[in-house]
Amino acid sequence: MPGSLPATAEASWPKDVGIVSLEIYFPSQYVDQVELEKFDGVDAGKYTIGLGQSKMGFCSDREDINSLCLTVVQRLMERNNISYDCIGRLEVGTETIIDKSKSVKTVLMQLFEDSGNTDVEGIDTTNACYGGTAALFNAVNWVESSSWDGRYALVVAGDIAVYATGSARPTGGAGAVAMLVGPNATLILERGVRGTHMQHAYDFYKPDMVSEYPVVDGKLSIQCYLGALDRCYSTYRSKIHAQWQKEGNEEPFTLNDFGYMIFHSPYCKLVQKSLARLLLNDFIGDPNPNTESGVYGGLDSFRHVKLEDTYFDRDVEKAFMKASAELFNEKTKASLLVSNQNGNMYTPSVYGCLASVLALYSPQQLAGQRIGVFSYGSGFAATLYSIKVTQDATPGSSLDKLTSSLCDLKARLDSRRSVAPSIFAENMKLRQHTHHLASYIPQGSVDNLFPGTWYLVRVDEKHRRYYARSSVLDDGPLEAVLEPVRSSTASEHIPSPAKKVPRIPAATEAGPVAVSNGEH
Amino acid sequence: MPGSLPATAEASWPKDVGIVSLEIYFPSQYVDQVELEKFDGVDAGKYTIGLGQSKMGFCSDREDINSLCLTVVQRLMERNNISYDCIGRLEVGTETIIDKSKSVKTVLMQLFEDSGNTDVEGIDTTNACYGGTAALFNAVNWVESSSWDGRYALVVAGDIAVYATGSARPTGGAGAVAMLVGPNATLILERGVRGTHMQHAYDFYKPDMVSEYPVVDGKLSIQCYLGALDRCYSTYRSKIHAQWQKEGNEEPFTLNDFGYMIFHSPYCKLVQKSLARLLLNDFIGDPNPNTESGVYGGLDSFRHVKLEDTYFDRDVEKAFMKASAELFNEKTKASLLVSNQNGNMYTPSVYGCLASVLALYSPQQLAGQRIGVFSYGSGFAATLYSIKVTQDATPGSSLDKLTSSLCDLKARLDSRRSVAPSIFAENMKLRQHTHHLASYIPQGSVDNLFPGTWYLVRVDEKHRRYYARSSVLDDGPLEAVLEPVRSSTASEHIPSPAKKVPRIPAATEAGPVAVSNGEH
Repeated sequence: MPGSLPATAEASWPKDVGIVSLEIYFPSQYVDQVELEKFDGVDAGKYTIGLGQSKMGFCSDREDINSLCLTVVQRLMERNNISYDCIGRLEVGTETIIDKSKSVKTVLMQLFEDSGNTDVEGIDTTNACYGGTAALFNAVNWVESSSWDGRYALVVAGDIAVYATGSARPTGGAGAVAMLVGPNATLILERGVRGTHMQHAYDFYKPDMVSEYPVVDGKLSIQCYLGALDRCYSTYRSKIHAQWQKEGNEEPFTLNDFGYMIFHSPYCKLVQKSLARLLLNDFIGDPNPNTESGVYGGLDSFRHVKLEDTYFDRDVEKAFMKASAELFNEKTKASLLVSNQNGNMYTPSVYGCLASVLALYSPQQLAGQRIGVFSYGSGFAATLYSIKVTQDATPGSSLDKLTSSLCDLKARLDSRRSVAPSIFAENMKLRQHTHHLASYIPQGSVDNLFPGTWYLVRVDEKHRRYYARSSVLDDGPLEAVLEPVRSSTASEHIPSPAKKVPRIPAATEAGPVAVSNGEH
Repeated sequence: MPGSLPATAEASWPKDVGIVSLEIYFPSQYVDQVELEKFDGVDAGKYTIGLGQSKMGFCSDREDINSLCLTVVQRLMERNNISYDCIGRLEVGTETIIDKSKSVKTVLMQLFEDSGNTDVEGIDTTNACYGGTAALFNAVNWVESSSWDGRYALVVAGDIAVYATGSARPTGGAGAVAMLVGPNATLILERGVRGTHMQHAYDFYKPDMVSEYPVVDGKLSIQCYLGALDRCYSTYRSKIHAQWQKEGNEEPFTLNDFGYMIFHSPYCKLVQKSLARLLLNDFIGDPNPNTESGVYGGLDSFRHVKLEDTYFDRDVEKAFMKASAELFNEKTKASLLVSNQNGNMYTPSVYGCLASVLALYSPQQLAGQRIGVFSYGSGFAATLYSIKVTQDATPGSSLDKLTSSLCDLKARLDSRRSVAPSIFAENMKLRQHTHHLASYIPQGSVDNLFPGTWYLVRVDEKHRRYYARSSVLDDGPLEAVLEPVRSSTASEHIPSPAKKVPRIPAATEAGPVAVSNGEH
């Protein structure tokens, strides 16, 4: 091995690096899964009970990965009243690839132009739904490294998840999450304990470059997800146990040591099965489980099952789903709000779960808790890591501000417009036929977008994309139009397109949220 | 601002983090640019003198981004005799996207299967030719952060650069570079001084998802590249000057402070112009340049030009090309070996320049030198950073081993097979028509690949790709065949395809290179 951490390292990294602020964006329209069941002619309950999904957000041809990320980043910056000068790194995790070379990150740099800040590291990172987590880890590493220049990092996860007609279609969704990363964070990434498992598989992938739809091997996908969960949990437990031993604690780590446990959610039912699977892991790892009563009561017959034999074992699944029902309600159920109401957003999915937990629990319920996070991206790449919530839940604390900034989450979800399955299907068809066209003028209405939503105005004959933003005050059609750099302005210094963009008022429908910027 | 680096930080990061070992792979065939000029019916010298290119490497349909990266990673691991257990992070920078979701990184995990090591962080990162640099920075940050577990990071940059017929076609190329990153490195990344400039532009991008070819705005591309160079150099100089001031040194930083200066090389002529441009920056920044004699002799008439007015100013260009001719020969020319002989490799391009410097200078010439590195990716993202070479050049030193491992670079380039332009054009047509097909069996011969080259065996009807490796001993057609995980084996623990792969002997045509693995 090349080396080990210097003994003095812990004392010298910035303190408590993690998530300072979090913003989530989802489309203003959805299709109801009960209606979709009828429209698709499937058994009632197939999507709603079988998958655990209630509503699915979707985008018209007015939104693409660039617009989703523009929207969520500007929303985060405005609501937290942060200057673009204060960002030293910005990285985007996405698998919604509309250009094989140009990163979404470079498109987002338009928002920075007025500030004059171009010294912003980070580009895009991709592996299915894992990109947001990779970007988050990279951001945290940056803050702890010699590369850090004292500024915040911004992590963006965004995707449009759409499937061909058929059984996977109801597992779509769309949205974006932006996270501000820095020291003295409210959600602190625990150090030295994450468990990662990466392996080659064709479980879900997107080899058809003109299609927005993936190729999915459903059974393999579940096996890879659950197998990765087993491996990551095992590695995580070994690492945290080793830390505890150093502190004189010989207790094994179990599910009980997570206050909350969240998962990448392709659909809610898989998450419930995953929580049950962690209990199975605990059970198998327990040298002397009490099967007479308590959580393991009646599970004696499963004493000698092997994890690798149980990916599709209905008896094991049923028994541990039942045994973990209470744990699911306590630790995981609330995290599925966005997933249940908006569907799978791919990279932002697990961070939508995090947003849901922050929205639905009080600062007092969250303070000091450990949140387990399982992030999975097909192909495949997975990590189980943990977040420690700060202790201070008093009014005005950073935790209070963070939860307040998300307290309107349910209301925002409820304020969306329901769209009939036939209209949804037409939208999918339209995207399918037009998403790669140049030149193209989108047909979707911009009237019903949430205030402050960036949308696609046109794609020119050279595939260059032009965006505008719906008014944050709901009083007019256009707020700003971004034009890309053109060679016709070659005689100027590299032109600054956003200089034409009027400054956006800091207030939004939810009002600004104050975040301590320290000495800035 | 959220904070600043703890005062004790410098003492507690691992020492001298940077590049421990470097491996480069390029195709075994090339087209001669003199012959290509004739074949294309353009003026003699257009490609060779105008662009500065002599030969262009290219791939048949037997190689893709996965195979290029498999080849260079395995070559690095074997020649340095490193166990796959010793890698804790692997990240790939590429803009050769053949799947919108599944990362090249996951394909490379097949090489790790025998070791049982799956706890390997990092996925793929993309922004044109900048991805390798982003991956390198992420790897260095990882080693300096709490995420580091004492193991090496592996950084891979790979691309296939091909253009539609026309003026850009001779600026193609292909290849991959792998770099082992850790502490106590031979090539140490200097801390706290890098200058980054990121901005939104459509200078070069790949919006046509079925095509391997980019859309290029040639003039804008040069403007963005040179503009980014100006900005990055300015930021770099400010940062390093601030460091020097703290040490009591008030001297301004100039080009003379780089022992070597390397650039991302789309074609060699632009690099020569870029070196001239750095001299222009020094000249404009000098409050009292001596225009009577010396390097600035005769440049008095350019005393008041503005950088932003000179991107296409022929007089300025000519004058500073002449003034910097000697500096170019001293600091940059040798770095263009791979670029001149193999063409633009996109992400690995600037690391091919680094390999060239290491191959062509002696340890004594390199020891203690500062190498300036300008990395540029269209769209655009750019950084100017610097590497400090270790002082010890004695036989058996890490520097001696590193240069020895690359001393056959010129011989390897010279051993390639020249292919007629008509055959090259046929290959391009074949790639164009088949690179996205499923199912597909490649037509290219595997007989002339370098020993130990991974190649594509077939793409099945579900776009799954299967690879084999040419013998490292040159004594048989197939060494190993990698099969992907299949759901038909669902009853096993997640199957380990590479278990079927025989261990590859550690020796290659160049013999193993010893690298100190510390206590491992």
